[in-house]
Amino acid sequence: MAHFDQPLRLRSGAELPAFDIAYETYGTLNAARSNAVLVCHALNASHHVAGFYEADAANIGWWDNLVGPGKPLDTRRFFVVGSNYLGSCFGSTGPASINPATGRPWGADFPVVTVEDWVEAQARLADRLGIERFAAVIGGSLGAMQALQWTLSYPARIRHSIVVAAAARLTPQNIAFNEVARQAIMTDPDFHGGHYYDKGVVPTRGLRIARMLGHITYLSGEAMAEKFGRLLRRGAPGFDFDIDFEIESYLRYQGDKFATYFDANTYLRTALARDRARAARQPAHRLLSRDRRARRARRLPARGRALPRRPAQLLPQHRAVRPDLAAIVQWVAPGARVLDLGCGDGSLLRSLWHERQAPGYGVEIDDDSVIACVSNDVNVLQVDLESGLSLFSDHSFDCVILSQTLQAVHHTEGVLREMLRVGREAIVSFPNFGHWSARLQVALGRMPVSDALPYEWYETPNVHQCTVADFEDLCRRLGFRIRERLVLHHGKPVRLLPNLLGSLAVYRCTTQ
Amino acid sequence: MAHFDQPLRLRSGAELPAFDIAYETYGTLNAARSNAVLVCHALNASHHVAGFYEADAANIGWWDNLVGPGKPLDTRRFFVVGSNYLGSCFGSTGPASINPATGRPWGADFPVVTVEDWVEAQARLADRLGIERFAAVIGGSLGAMQALQWTLSYPARIRHSIVVAAAARLTPQNIAFNEVARQAIMTDPDFHGGHYYDKGVVPTRGLRIARMLGHITYLSGEAMAEKFGRLLRRGAPGFDFDIDFEIESYLRYQGDKFATYFDANTYLRTALARDRARAARQPAHRLLSRDRRARRARRLPARGRALPRRPAQLLPQHRAVRPDLAAIVQWVAPGARVLDLGCGDGSLLRSLWHERQAPGYGVEIDDDSVIACVSNDVNVLQVDLESGLSLFSDHSFDCVILSQTLQAVHHTEGVLREMLRVGREAIVSFPNFGHWSARLQVALGRMPVSDALPYEWYETPNVHQCTVADFEDLCRRLGFRIRERLVLHHGKPVRLLPNLLGSLAVYRCTTQ
Repeated sequence: MAHFDQPLRLRSGAELPAFDIAYETYGTLNAARSNAVLVCHALNASHHVAGFYEADAANIGWWDNLVGPGKPLDTRRFFVVGSNYLGSCFGSTGPASINPATGRPWGADFPVVTVEDWVEAQARLADRLGIERFAAVIGGSLGAMQALQWTLSYPARIRHSIVVAAAARLTPQNIAFNEVARQAIMTDPDFHGGHYYDKGVVPTRGLRIARMLGHITYLSGEAMAEKFGRLLRRGAPGFDFDIDFEIESYLRYQGDKFATYFDANTYLRTALARDRARAARQPAHRLLSRDRRARRARRLPARGRALPRRPAQLLPQHRAVRPDLAAIVQWVAPGARVLDLGCGDGSLLRSLWHERQAPGYGVEIDDDSVIACVSNDVNVLQVDLESGLSLFSDHSFDCVILSQTLQAVHHTEGVLREMLRVGREAIVSFPNFGHWSARLQVALGRMPVSDALPYEWYETPNVHQCTVADFEDLCRRLGFRIRERLVLHHGKPVRLLPNLLGSLAVYRCTTQ
Repeated sequence: MAHFDQPLRLRSGAELPAFDIAYETYGTLNAARSNAVLVCHALNASHHVAGFYEADAANIGWWDNLVGPGKPLDTRRFFVVGSNYLGSCFGSTGPASINPATGRPWGADFPVVTVEDWVEAQARLADRLGIERFAAVIGGSLGAMQALQWTLSYPARIRHSIVVAAAARLTPQNIAFNEVARQAIMTDPDFHGGHYYDKGVVPTRGLRIARMLGHITYLSGEAMAEKFGRLLRRGAPGFDFDIDFEIESYLRYQGDKFATYFDANTYLRTALARDRARAARQPAHRLLSRDRRARRARRLPARGRALPRRPAQLLPQHRAVRPDLAAIVQWVAPGARVLDLGCGDGSLLRSLWHERQAPGYGVEIDDDSVIACVSNDVNVLQVDLESGLSLFSDHSFDCVILSQTLQAVHHTEGVLREMLRVGREAIVSFPNFGHWSARLQVALGRMPVSDALPYEWYETPNVHQCTVADFEDLCRRLGFRIRERLVLHHGKPVRLLPNLLGSLAVYRCTTQ
């Protein structure tokens, strides 16, 4: 527990005269103070990230499988800090703490805190621990919102931000669920307007409903169907209000459990903080510019040199398989801010950083690929590229890349337009359906299958295939200007009859 | 209001010694008693379907735009019956009614009723009104569950069932939402275990939460985002628990309104009835066989002759545009039960009924097409054909049709397999990518655009195109036996080099 005597000015304008932040640490801070990793927790977890206490061996930290000697966050190498947040009910100053002005619990008078406030308090904790810059901030869900906010509030104090299971902002549907949960708590007669601590009651009914609701939103409809189906607890549905379906049993259990240990005032404030968080349309831009700004301001070594452990052998090997990537790397200007749509395991972004010092973000929907990006040390946002670009403001990037993904896109026009809205230029590569081998197979009455088009017609993810000529027509229609074109076959440029002899096309486009 | 003195045995085994059903009628029952339409209502509506009362001109029936002279349910032609359901709080016998055994309101002692029970009581109402067979039963949402149940309980007493915005059964996620709503009501201290009527209180807090939750589920996340966005009520988000977002205001308003007029015990029982309803894997089969059974049992005229008003001119015109349909109609055996996937406006099903007396169901996802089906007098289920066939049990149909839709299917193998699980045979038609004009265009380096393939590559819904040869390969792979094949061009059969000269292929397949 760290106690801070300096008052903390909150976003709301209110001021906390003093506050505590609960935390735990694992591993040792090195002499250079460069190996600290901040772990931010989700709603029902706490700063108890790993291991257990002698007195309570069953209470194992919530990320014990990730944090420890030899584990992904290796505590022989990293100094891991698990931090609670301001307003929590797990030890930091919060609604159940004593209000120094009254000598009684704050209750409803505890100020509304925001994600910015949480990060502000954690920055004080970092100061206290002597950490000028974290090697990484990592968090899932609510913790991810903190990890994102660190990139906005203190871009120069973190090297990486690892954002797991997060949105830059809540959707109206998320807000709606939060509102129903808040109303369930606030209309519980035991809530007493938030001043229930000295009344000997707790609004457990409202908390229970809130948690049941939360657990509905943690699973998609499909996942819930897969996990619970319409399984019955009794042989047949009964004609009363007892539990019939497994899903009912699960929700009641989760609700009951949560209501025994969580605090209603903390719940309300946390839900509100989530609603208000608006990291969107900002962080990518700010995060990408932070390295340069940080270097300029503080004469820190460039990020490329600070990370000598990248396995360089990945690059040539990869490039043999995907010859378009070499061209793309050459076309990206040194230091350009890059967005790679459908980035896979992040190889291209690594090459771009390595060879062009171009910082970038990947957009990827596939779980395994997102995890691969994280292990490859690549910034990645898990969103659907067909709808997710609305996150970014105009011209957030110097270059937006869609490499060998165009043919799998459904809203082709929309995605291409979005690329040249959020980026100053677009680089697009795709397999050329005009290659003679495809033409020959079609001429013989079959859908083509080749190295460049390796799928059978009935299982191909390539839903919108095109030829070089088709793509150029579409560019004209969209008012795009083709700045460069490279058509390849077996990795070699094809200059003669490219639409016939090239199997892979790469374009660099801008708006007029 | 109709009062029934004969006891009603419920599905639960309980018996209601007597009961009332509230209803309204519009129009006149004809001499043949063949023009009655039963309208079943959704949760927050009632039997007051159309018009208004002199004393309460503002209270206009909930389907007034559909029911009335000259309206779709034309009361100059139809005798429309709006029926309330048993256990409702809008006039029929329900939890707030007096329990004759105690002389006090039933409250929690009112038995749990099911959708079957509702239909049973409505059948008594039909008897009372002298209606042996309804021309149609129609309902949306909760009303649709009743319309579906009619097809199970009394297939011979309805000519059509029009099912709007319905599922054959609730998903686990639906059940989960219902459970949270029920728990919100049952844990409201004013609920008093369901015996609140004579305590002068109503569990409005729980009802309010239940309704707020309901309103989240009535809109998809996308629709909610479109309707409300993150619009703020105040200039900037405040630092308190007042309303900030429009969606919060909307939910509180809906919740408050509902809690003033709805009854908590009715809510609980209605939600339970919805959870328990299991029309799935059954109704299509039973509905489709009902005409023949009904005819056999009661010597009723066949359905085709009973409906002379079908506009026959639709068919030839349609067939000119879609020459595959003529072949399909010829291949379907007279009286066969048919499922048409991606049925559009239902034209094919009309032809099949008209010419082959083959009763059928359409599956269609598009709203406008579903509405067109309803006006075309075609049974339609609004589900996604790529996942929705799990509704049907094995061999529910004699024939499952996928006409000119294969090329727009993503899970090609899965859909084809499902077709021959739920049907004894499958009829598939698709545009032939092997036609010489497509081959020629590809040979010239362009994606083909033609009469049969009318879309540009970047906007085509055809994601999995194939040639005649490709399709036959896949059939071999899947173990399908091709029983008949017809390849057409400009509506004429192509016998020579069909993969080259045919633009449209039609197949009839069975499992080995």
